[in-house]
Amino acid sequence: MATHESYSIRPIGWVRSPLTDRKGAPRQPNEGAPAATLEISEEFVDALDGLTPGQEIIVLTWLHQAVRDVLIVRPRGDLRNPLTGVFATRSPDRPNPVGLHQVQLVSITNRRFLQIAALEAIDGTPIVDLKAVL
Amino acid sequence: MATHESYSIRPIGWVRSPLTDRKGAPRQPNEGAPAATLEISEEFVDALDGLTPGQEIIVLTWLHQAVRDVLIVRPRGDLRNPLTGVFATRSPDRPNPVGLHQVQLVSITNRRFLQIAALEAIDGTPIVDLKAVL
Repeated sequence: MATHESYSIRPIGWVRSPLTDRKGAPRQPNEGAPAATLEISEEFVDALDGLTPGQEIIVLTWLHQAVRDVLIVRPRGDLRNPLTGVFATRSPDRPNPVGLHQVQLVSITNRRFLQIAALEAIDGTPIVDLKAVL
Repeated sequence: MATHESYSIRPIGWVRSPLTDRKGAPRQPNEGAPAATLEISEEFVDALDGLTPGQEIIVLTWLHQAVRDVLIVRPRGDLRNPLTGVFATRSPDRPNPVGLHQVQLVSITNRRFLQIAALEAIDGTPIVDLKAVL
């Protein structure tokens, strides 16, 4: 078994948001998250073809401020919650901090700026991938 | 803007499956995918604490056989489908080939072997992350 393999993620774009501080950010989109823009890099514009305003999409992000050597947390950072393995939670702190967000695509401007109704990721968060909702 | 940044993913484990060939693999779990095992590395066992047999979980994988410079595809490889940007599809071929699977956790054996009811990923696929379903 290859136990030392690793893979390289290169951002396809970045989140633009009024949220600038992880501490102040909502935990989920339905907890008061603001509208945001996904700025997709010019080189990936062709990969956006077929996205339609109004549809739901899945956004994967790289939670660049996450702590990667955390294995157990108190969910939602609430001390009343029991210690739980990060793989049983949605904590941003985890070995590979990929964020998973299902969001509404409101519009696309200038070919590569995706306006999102509500997103809890902070400004500057790298975008890993976009996917159709099945 | 940092346009040359990249991030390193280290697998937390590997898929064990009777599926060995991407060509023969189902596209989705409900399309005849077989039962599979997620073998989690010993060092991440603590992060599994709280996972409960019977629950649905989200599995992120690294689709290691994907072609990363593909931007448009015919969905499901069907020539009758129109060319579509990969970000509007679930094609495994995409710039950062992270697979997203919502699966049922049947049981956990020997602390770190997660038995999954149905999974379309092939044997040896690296596992990136596990998350609770919200």
